[in-house]
Amino acid sequence: MMVIMRDGATDEEVQHLIDKVKSVGLDVHVSRGEFKTIIGLLGDTAKARELPLSAFPGVEKVVPILKPFKLVSRDFKEEDTIVKVGDLSIGGNSFIVAAGPCAVESKDQMVEIAKMVKKAGAGMLRGGAFKPRSSPYSFQGLGEDGLKILAEAREATGLPVVTEVMDAGDVELVAEYADVLQIGARNMQNFLLLKEVGMYEKPVLIKRGLSATIEELLMAAEYVMSGGNPNVILCERGIRTFETYTRNTLDISAVALVKMLSHLPILVDPSHAAGRWDLIEPLSMAAMAVGAHGVLIEVHPNPEDALSDGAQSLKYNKFDLLMDELKKTGAVFGKEM
Amino acid sequence: MMVIMRDGATDEEVQHLIDKVKSVGLDVHVSRGEFKTIIGLLGDTAKARELPLSAFPGVEKVVPILKPFKLVSRDFKEEDTIVKVGDLSIGGNSFIVAAGPCAVESKDQMVEIAKMVKKAGAGMLRGGAFKPRSSPYSFQGLGEDGLKILAEAREATGLPVVTEVMDAGDVELVAEYADVLQIGARNMQNFLLLKEVGMYEKPVLIKRGLSATIEELLMAAEYVMSGGNPNVILCERGIRTFETYTRNTLDISAVALVKMLSHLPILVDPSHAAGRWDLIEPLSMAAMAVGAHGVLIEVHPNPEDALSDGAQSLKYNKFDLLMDELKKTGAVFGKEM
Amino acid sequence: MMVIMRDGATDEEVQHLIDKVKSVGLDVHVSRGEFKTIIGLLGDTAKARELPLSAFPGVEKVVPILKPFKLVSRDFKEEDTIVKVGDLSIGGNSFIVAAGPCAVESKDQMVEIAKMVKKAGAGMLRGGAFKPRSSPYSFQGLGEDGLKILAEAREATGLPVVTEVMDAGDVELVAEYADVLQIGARNMQNFLLLKEVGMYEKPVLIKRGLSATIEELLMAAEYVMSGGNPNVILCERGIRTFETYTRNTLDISAVALVKMLSHLPILVDPSHAAGRWDLIEPLSMAAMAVGAHGVLIEVHPNPEDALSDGAQSLKYNKFDLLMDELKKTGAVFGKEM
Amino acid sequence: MMVIMRDGATDEEVQHLIDKVKSVGLDVHVSRGEFKTIIGLLGDTAKARELPLSAFPGVEKVVPILKPFKLVSRDFKEEDTIVKVGDLSIGGNSFIVAAGPCAVESKDQMVEIAKMVKKAGAGMLRGGAFKPRSSPYSFQGLGEDGLKILAEAREATGLPVVTEVMDAGDVELVAEYADVLQIGARNMQNFLLLKEVGMYEKPVLIKRGLSATIEELLMAAEYVMSGGNPNVILCERGIRTFETYTRNTLDISAVALVKMLSHLPILVDPSHAAGRWDLIEPLSMAAMAVGAHGVLIEVHPNPEDALSDGAQSLKYNKFDLLMDELKKTGAVFGKEM
Repeated sequence: MMVIMRDGATDEEVQHLIDKVKSVGLDVHVSRGEFKTIIGLLGDTAKARELPLSAFPGVEKVVPILKPFKLVSRDFKEEDTIVKVGDLSIGGNSFIVAAGPCAVESKDQMVEIAKMVKKAGAGMLRGGAFKPRSSPYSFQGLGEDGLKILAEAREATGLPVVTEVMDAGDVELVAEYADVLQIGARNMQNFLLLKEVGMYEKPVLIKRGLSATIEELLMAAEYVMSGGNPNVILCERGIRTFETYTRNTLDISAVALVKMLSHLPILVDPSHAAGRWDLIEPLSMAAMAVGAHGVLIEVHPNPEDALSDGAQSLKYNKFDLLMDELKKTGAVFGKEM
Repeated sequence: MMVIMRDGATDEEVQHLIDKVKSVGLDVHVSRGEFKTIIGLLGDTAKARELPLSAFPGVEKVVPILKPFKLVSRDFKEEDTIVKVGDLSIGGNSFIVAAGPCAVESKDQMVEIAKMVKKAGAGMLRGGAFKPRSSPYSFQGLGEDGLKILAEAREATGLPVVTEVMDAGDVELVAEYADVLQIGARNMQNFLLLKEVGMYEKPVLIKRGLSATIEELLMAAEYVMSGGNPNVILCERGIRTFETYTRNTLDISAVALVKMLSHLPILVDPSHAAGRWDLIEPLSMAAMAVGAHGVLIEVHPNPEDALSDGAQSLKYNKFDLLMDELKKTGAVFGKEM
Repeated sequence: MMVIMRDGATDEEVQHLIDKVKSVGLDVHVSRGEFKTIIGLLGDTAKARELPLSAFPGVEKVVPILKPFKLVSRDFKEEDTIVKVGDLSIGGNSFIVAAGPCAVESKDQMVEIAKMVKKAGAGMLRGGAFKPRSSPYSFQGLGEDGLKILAEAREATGLPVVTEVMDAGDVELVAEYADVLQIGARNMQNFLLLKEVGMYEKPVLIKRGLSATIEELLMAAEYVMSGGNPNVILCERGIRTFETYTRNTLDISAVALVKMLSHLPILVDPSHAAGRWDLIEPLSMAAMAVGAHGVLIEVHPNPEDALSDGAQSLKYNKFDLLMDELKKTGAVFGKEM
Repeated sequence: MMVIMRDGATDEEVQHLIDKVKSVGLDVHVSRGEFKTIIGLLGDTAKARELPLSAFPGVEKVVPILKPFKLVSRDFKEEDTIVKVGDLSIGGNSFIVAAGPCAVESKDQMVEIAKMVKKAGAGMLRGGAFKPRSSPYSFQGLGEDGLKILAEAREATGLPVVTEVMDAGDVELVAEYADVLQIGARNMQNFLLLKEVGMYEKPVLIKRGLSATIEELLMAAEYVMSGGNPNVILCERGIRTFETYTRNTLDISAVALVKMLSHLPILVDPSHAAGRWDLIEPLSMAAMAVGAHGVLIEVHPNPEDALSDGAQSLKYNKFDLLMDELKKTGAVFGKEM
């Protein structure tokens, strides 16, 4: 932590800050320039971060030097984390496709889709039982019945299941049925939920919030890991910008950056990023090319009848074509699929 | 809902969409232009919204005509809602100031601050017992002990208390102690939490999410009202933009717009919007001038020692001056304080 | 300028950077922490800024310490700059209203509007002769004929005229007719244009770009001032965000910040910020309350017939009411109008 | 254009709007729903767009139905435009790499870089003679001397040259030396400049503005094409968002969308998007995978000495590796390089 004092900060102000910093057990390193005095804090960073340094008289700006995340950091663990979900490995050189409908609608639908996406080569099944919807008047998901249906679809196909958990109070229930617990974009900073899933061993998939920085995404993962659960998968799903032709703006650079900053695997969700099915194929190819460890794809036999997000779902034949493209290209990029 | 077909959409595509719309009990109104065919949907809007119309072949764009919110709408209820919190009225011509520290730190601190802000003219006490913090290593609040302290500060001063509830499972507990339940910006789309507070009568203060549109803020309020709780207060607290001189960008226009679109009261939180104490005074004046029903202000006897957000807290003497300014100006704007 | 080296940067990397910095005549101050080495650059800041320090091996981050602007800075000149436009003073305690149509349409229109806004109390006349339009098929302004009409309206009323200049090659022409040269938001970083107006004495009004930071706005002013023209007026007119209920998001905090950082006057343009007439009144009041030195208001006798931006123009009677409000409130805020 | 009237708009308001629309020669189509009346405008769209319809009493919202661009539209010209630059073809199945330093620094430097990038397989040379810099104290480019050097580098290698023109008054000069005229991001809505380059036959490369929508980018191209110049190349170079780990956020979806909406070729500039060299490789691969027609890459023999943007420039050996990757992958994607 560096504290930059204002032009003309007095000696008293500088000394006052130094005294305070020392009183909590940190040391300082003072550098007096022509215009500015700069005070570096040495010692326990976490303690330094808690001090409201910019509230001190004479302070212009506080600049953090060390990153706020630890356990998720590439500095802390150099080799890639490989999250095991049953036989599936997520991370490293693998490229996985998790596919399925936005919402679980019925047993027949789910089992049919599961069989289809498995046949096409998907490695995981996705589908929402608890649905976060911006309107109270929209379909809110089947709840526990949806979880049971997901488990039946797993039975029928052997595909592991990822599904969203929306509330700390539901984690135990969802963990009974799901193979991966998904934290949705709107809950990325629901810290009680993050703490709760941190107390399980079950893999957790954290979607980046609509306006979350890359650092905040990594801090969400830090919450889970600091609770004791090392099995964290990240997911870039688009951020909110001024552009309106797409629902969100897929931040493809975030994938490459996360891989530099962290050892955790990162997936891309082109369906939610774009909000329209006709961008899923090019964005999936871009995801693979940029180095993502996989994609989440919405698939529906009949998007016109989907109870949620039909506009961003692929039909079976389009999904088949996409899987063919991914396999062909994956070979060039050295990906195991 | 209007559906705009692509140039060259076929008659079959148009008919297919019409058939589908009619099959769910809605009627249509078709308008064929030189280039485009436009299909208007007549009847139950909620039903129309649930159809994934942009997934249909030949569709270019779907344009909602009616607003998605109902109960919160000025069309639904013309006169201003006045939310009563004890003797305090929020809404209409009143301008209220809720003041206090970011986090509850101790009983002595809280009672002292409560007495001070009351003396200066504040109408409500704020302070966090459960704190959403982006780092798991930061102070997370005193929890239930903090709630008890808030209740004691109310005892000592008569000021009603607003405090955050972060989880659906905590609503009952927080409601026991608080006079107003605050939904924080990061939880604005925690729909289970919104549903839960909708089942109480206790007033609810909803802060706008960092990247929430005005419409999404109103939909969050719709969740609470549709659950049966009409006592909703909104709060503009800044949105996330590219500007870095302030922590967030206070969207002052949102206040005026919410007052046109809705009958609910709306406050402004200049402390969180700016993230720096030296903007609180000018932003509070702007909030009053634009028509807000009040402000939330962070006050701390010694910001340098604050356990949370000290940089954006006012000292007592600054708060006194702010209250003087607000009273003087409130008289011109016809505000009851 | 502080250079933060990566964890594990080698001594050679540190030395290499130091050698380079010294070779251009700057001195350094090295601080070795437990994890990081930090190198402070001492001496001519402008020279330090030109070094591509983050391209050096072992560098993690480069942190500017000094602000990049000088002449516009409050540190450089403490007292408020008052820009004189004829008898009008902009800056300090004055609050001026510049009013008029978006585009000059005809002599009769312009003279009529000028008389009306003068009567209502406006201090300056605005109107575009050269219009930046996002479509090549839209009305592009009357050009030099428009400038002549503006001069005639000034003749008829005595009101000084502010109008946009869009191109370095047009500055001489526009300066012949206008009292204040306006640099539009889309040209805020048209550096040749900024340099050109810097070579005149004529006051320059710089509108903040749609995605310009406050620092970039001040740097645009620095371009003009460094050319020798001290008569610069700034204008906040909304930034582009994800919110769609308003055309732009008025960044009201920017006004207060600019007043801290700079001695230059700053106005607010609520018409362009909101893009809708029904927000002009509340946003104008907020502008005054936050400390702006004035507002730019679009006024049109018949917005339905306006050739540009009718939706955000006030009719005469609404403008009269707004002026009354501003005068009444200005008295409380100690503004000279 | 559809006009949606407010709930409770009166018959007079509806009739008033219809009369006005008819008076300019357009026809209307009125649809009265339970709550809302909707008026569709039939006939010349450009005329309809010029009417300030939202200024009319009783109007709630105006919804454009047709896209504002014509000549650039895929509807207007179905097959891909191939822009010829000497022997080079940009568009269709080709993938071109334009490489070179941010700024032209000297003849020796430029000729050396040109030879190197040609050897590695680049098809075009980039380099700035006129540099838009946010500080007046930064290196502003060599101007005409820089143009001459670029021409010499072309002589020496046969590589065509792309360079920025910043001002309408400079177009003739730059066109004398350059093969492609670049419109920089900050000038994307410098409409006089767009009009000027529209009067030449020389290919024009338009970079997307920092906060320009995809539609605005296409409208910039429409300006050039409507002036008579069909040789337009677009370029996605990142947009401004809240994320700070990258200088801008590369909007990779924009590439796929532009290819749907328009027949024009589109390149990607990963150097400016990321602002850091270590993201250039993954972003270039993503650009190819998503379907871009090429990339612009900053290359410098010694980024530490670059006069501009050294931090985002590749060294020779890294550029060689990138070209190898692109060639290998291009084969899979069926790209001609």
